[in-house]
Amino acid sequence: MVPTTARTRLRQLDQKGSTEREALDAILDAARVAHVAFTDADAQPFNIPVASARDGDRLLLHGSTGSRMFRTLAAGVPVCASIVLLDGLVLARSAFESSMQYRSAVIFGTPTVINAQQKPEALRRMVEAWMPGRWAELRPPTGRELAATLVVSLLLKEWSVKTSALEPEDPTEDLDAPVWAGVLPIDTNYGSPRPAADLRYSGPVPDYLSGWTIG
Amino acid sequence: MVPTTARTRLRQLDQKGSTEREALDAILDAARVAHVAFTDADAQPFNIPVASARDGDRLLLHGSTGSRMFRTLAAGVPVCASIVLLDGLVLARSAFESSMQYRSAVIFGTPTVINAQQKPEALRRMVEAWMPGRWAELRPPTGRELAATLVVSLLLKEWSVKTSALEPEDPTEDLDAPVWAGVLPIDTNYGSPRPAADLRYSGPVPDYLSGWTIG
Repeated sequence: MVPTTARTRLRQLDQKGSTEREALDAILDAARVAHVAFTDADAQPFNIPVASARDGDRLLLHGSTGSRMFRTLAAGVPVCASIVLLDGLVLARSAFESSMQYRSAVIFGTPTVINAQQKPEALRRMVEAWMPGRWAELRPPTGRELAATLVVSLLLKEWSVKTSALEPEDPTEDLDAPVWAGVLPIDTNYGSPRPAADLRYSGPVPDYLSGWTIG
Repeated sequence: MVPTTARTRLRQLDQKGSTEREALDAILDAARVAHVAFTDADAQPFNIPVASARDGDRLLLHGSTGSRMFRTLAAGVPVCASIVLLDGLVLARSAFESSMQYRSAVIFGTPTVINAQQKPEALRRMVEAWMPGRWAELRPPTGRELAATLVVSLLLKEWSVKTSALEPEDPTEDLDAPVWAGVLPIDTNYGSPRPAADLRYSGPVPDYLSGWTIG
C-alpha cells in the first residue's frame, strides 16, 4: 500500500481509489503510452504522450536526444504522468448519472537519466514489456543508435489510481423512465499482423505475437 | 491551417505534423478523454484525464463543482490538453526502428467557464458528441444537477497534431535480417451493449447505438 500525499489523495469519489501496487502495475502494463506533463520556466504546462514501459518499481520513458521534451526531462524537472484506459460508456437514465468505466493512474516524480552503461538493458526491458519475446530476434543496438536515444526513469513512489467498473446507478425515481440503460463496453485489442511491404524473411509470423495483449 | 507558435511548432519528425483543422477535429471526435495538465502555485504540474467533447471550435470539459481540479480550471489557469489514439505497433527489424502508429493532438489555452444560462446547451452538446441521439430520450437535468456540474471550454486556437501511419522503415542493410517485420494493428471498438441489472424498460436496445464509433 502506498501512503497518500496531499497531491495523490483523492478527494472526489474516494471509493473509486486504490492504494494497492497491483492495481497500478496492471494499468501501467496494459498501457503503451503515458501523457507526461511538466512545467517550463514561465510556468507554462506542457503535456506530451510518450511510449512508456513499467520495469519493476519504475516507469521507463525513451525518446530522441534531439527532442526538446526529452532534454527537459533529462534535466530533472518534476513531472506528472497520467494514463487512462477506457472500458465502457455507462448509459444511465439521466445525463447526470451517465459516465464511463475506466482505469486511470497518475504518477508524480522527477525522472532520472539512465546512464550509458545501463541504457542497453533498459531498452531491452522496454522492448520486452511491449513485445515479449522479440528482443532476442533483433540485432543489438549500434553505438550510434544508443547515442541518439535518451532513456529516463520515473520511480513509482508517489501515485494514485482511480478506477470505475460501475453499472448505471440511477436514483429510484428514475428507474421507470422509458429509456434503455446499461453499459456499452469499449474493447481494445491487437488485430491481425500485417507483413511489411518490403519483407524478405520467409518464415512465419512469430508465435510470441499471439500471446501479446493490450488495453 | 493554424499558424504555429513556439509552443506548437514540431521540432522532431516534422513530416508527421499536420496544421489542418480537419486532422485535429478527427482526433478530438474519436477520443472520449483528454489529459489536461496545469500548474499549481508551486510550479508543480498536475495532469488529470477528463471526459472531453469537441463542439465546433472549442473543446468542452465537465466535472463536479466539488472537484479541486475543476475549481482550478474554472479560475482560469493555462492548460495543455493532450490526446493520443494508438493504431498499431510497428515491428521493424531493429529495436531502434520499431515504433507505434498513432494520432495525437496537443492543445494550449486557458479554459473559460460556461455560464449558468449556457450550461444546459453545453451539456446537451457533450452528450450528443459522445452518445448521438440519446439526449432527446433523457429527462432534462434538474437544477441541483446543473448546480453540481462545472463546464469549461477550451478554444481550439493554439494546437499541434502529430500522426504516424508508417510501415517499418528499416535501412537497406537490415532488410535481410531473419526476422518477421510488419504492423500489429491496435483496434478500439464498442462491444455489445449489456443491459443494466435493474433495467425495467422493456423496449429494445436503441437503434442509435449501432451508429456509434470510437477510437
